[in-house]
Amino acid sequence: QFFSMAVIPGDGIGPEVTNEALKMIKKVEELHGGMKFYSEHFEWGCDYYLKNGRMMPENGLEILKDFDVILFGAVGAKTVPDYISVWELILPIRQKFQQYVNLRPIKLLRGMESPLRYKNHEDLDFVVIRENTEGEYFNSGGRVHEGTPYELAMQNSVFTRFGMERILNYAFTLAEKRKKKSLTAATKSNAINFTMPFWDELVKEISGNYPGIKTQLYHIDALAAYFVSRPEEFDVVVGSNLFGDILTDLGAAIVGGLGISPSGNINPERAYPSMFEPIHGSAPDIAGKGIANPIASIWSIGLMMDHLGHDHIGKLIVDSIEAVLVDGNIRTPDLGGTATTVEMGDAIISKMAQL
Amino acid sequence: QFFSMAVIPGDGIGPEVTNEALKMIKKVEELHGGMKFYSEHFEWGCDYYLKNGRMMPENGLEILKDFDVILFGAVGAKTVPDYISVWELILPIRQKFQQYVNLRPIKLLRGMESPLRYKNHEDLDFVVIRENTEGEYFNSGGRVHEGTPYELAMQNSVFTRFGMERILNYAFTLAEKRKKKSLTAATKSNAINFTMPFWDELVKEISGNYPGIKTQLYHIDALAAYFVSRPEEFDVVVGSNLFGDILTDLGAAIVGGLGISPSGNINPERAYPSMFEPIHGSAPDIAGKGIANPIASIWSIGLMMDHLGHDHIGKLIVDSIEAVLVDGNIRTPDLGGTATTVEMGDAIISKMAQL
Ligand SMILES: CC(C)[C@H](C(=O)O)[C@@H](O)C(=O)O
Ligand SMILES: CC(C)[C@H](C(=O)O)[C@@H](O)C(=O)O
Repeated sequence: QFFSMAVIPGDGIGPEVTNEALKMIKKVEELHGGMKFYSEHFEWGCDYYLKNGRMMPENGLEILKDFDVILFGAVGAKTVPDYISVWELILPIRQKFQQYVNLRPIKLLRGMESPLRYKNHEDLDFVVIRENTEGEYFNSGGRVHEGTPYELAMQNSVFTRFGMERILNYAFTLAEKRKKKSLTAATKSNAINFTMPFWDELVKEISGNYPGIKTQLYHIDALAAYFVSRPEEFDVVVGSNLFGDILTDLGAAIVGGLGISPSGNINPERAYPSMFEPIHGSAPDIAGKGIANPIASIWSIGLMMDHLGHDHIGKLIVDSIEAVLVDGNIRTPDLGGTATTVEMGDAIISKMAQL
Repeated sequence: QFFSMAVIPGDGIGPEVTNEALKMIKKVEELHGGMKFYSEHFEWGCDYYLKNGRMMPENGLEILKDFDVILFGAVGAKTVPDYISVWELILPIRQKFQQYVNLRPIKLLRGMESPLRYKNHEDLDFVVIRENTEGEYFNSGGRVHEGTPYELAMQNSVFTRFGMERILNYAFTLAEKRKKKSLTAATKSNAINFTMPFWDELVKEISGNYPGIKTQLYHIDALAAYFVSRPEEFDVVVGSNLFGDILTDLGAAIVGGLGISPSGNINPERAYPSMFEPIHGSAPDIAGKGIANPIASIWSIGLMMDHLGHDHIGKLIVDSIEAVLVDGNIRTPDLGGTATTVEMGDAIISKMAQL
């Protein structure tokens, strides 16, 4: 079975962690003779911008379009305003390729300790499904009266029935496959009084088609608090682009850190490539030092395998990561150790051969 | 010294906890002969709505306008859509009275244990300053193509130089008075690309006037994670209406729960009344049972005293709450005890007399 993969290492620690993920791809090919990856690298990102005045070539999306999957590192550097680097690279890929599902497991791995005093592995095992193409990430707004005391900026957000139905159906279907049969939707319909009440209506409407699923709407403020106080309640959590963004960084924190949590930007219909990337960003402060934690990037390969229909390999990758964490000897500095990015990657990959 | 106080107990557990706060007001008058409160009660809220088709009388704001302070309970009931109850009561008060500072201490009280495994009292003591009049809480948007597959809703947010300057100046001035001389601003300028870059610019511009303050901008997703992983870093945190809302519920969670955290909606110029209320909501599930925790409401009286220039009484109130928590015998169910709302209130008030 042959898959084509575009690799965009991007900025900061992106290339370092992506390297380890690529070693994992090699290992997968080795262990599972049937799978072959044809991969092509694209050095797009902030350095590319400094030379070319744009984050990727004009026909960048055209180039990516026919790949099965994209492996992404990270985006963002001090040299380019964030709203440019992001709106010219990662967001067009997510939005134009209809990667409307941003899937992010929040799972306390074996060998990891939660910063939450009384929570353990059984308490911390859920998935956040984040809408990934519309909502608050909408390139619409403006500014007026610049430089006067009357200056102001406005920004729009957009919630479509089309966009909400597809993400909610995905989330409910996932909830049906999981144990707790429960779905929690993030809202803020009390204050954000046009878009969010519409979201609530759709959550209720669509929940009618999934009678086996217990559905709960929580305001985002309360929900963020519950991630700390009662995470064991959650199974599938679904939220808008912004709320999903906040909840997943917070989710990463309660399971031990941003260095670990992966994400899939998925087009379930496979009409376009899906993209896999760590939740963490480019972390300029530690870039180039060889000490970034590659687990999030390697685990993203696990999500890629799930997406490609090879769940057993996805599971094997998570098992390998867990086994290394349980051993505990090899840990990057963010996990309290002194291992390098490469040592951590190597440990996981050699563990993989033993399982 | 004479103060006029409007009391709006509101919905759910609002009246129960407000009752205890009022007992505290009485105690303050008793212990500090100089202070006198003239108070008037307004039974506005969802029940009022069911009878009158509105959350408060048409001239409600007119009625409130000349009070020095407002004591607020909670708003929200299953009987009225949240966006109505909120937009017709609490938000008009905050916005029309230019209560642009929503001040929310995030402080682990003595006698309380943080749910964060390795964090103690020194690590958890900061203040969130939330913009309270504009931003994402902007009654502007619309919906089109209802009932068709093409239905969509849009919502605007608005950030003015006027609004941002005043909240940032307040936050920086507060930071100058505190120990760590540091200010953290929440942003999301990478994705929300019109309003948030403007916010960032103003943070940088205004920080120039406060050279003694170390200023840091974090994206809201990372910042939420840092509330869990390194809360000891924070001193004054400033954010937009929505970001401040999310951060303060999360903040309440890391210091032991929503039942404890108070807030002040402050008009620093005192051109209008300021309002004091618990962070928690109306909690319909436990309303009427007499088991709600009154600490947040009582502590709100502490913030009211600070605002009225009686910081020493404010401090005494917090000390009394802490002393009762340290004793540990009297705790409401949310704190693992069996005390009633009234018992908890009484304990704090009688402790106050002993300090
Ligand atoms: C009731 C609701 C509109 C309110 C808010 O979002 O401001 C509440 O959550 C709060 O924090 O005071
Ligand atoms: C880089 C940024 C725009 C992005 C987002 O907000 O989606 C990141 O935080 C993420 O979660 O993938």
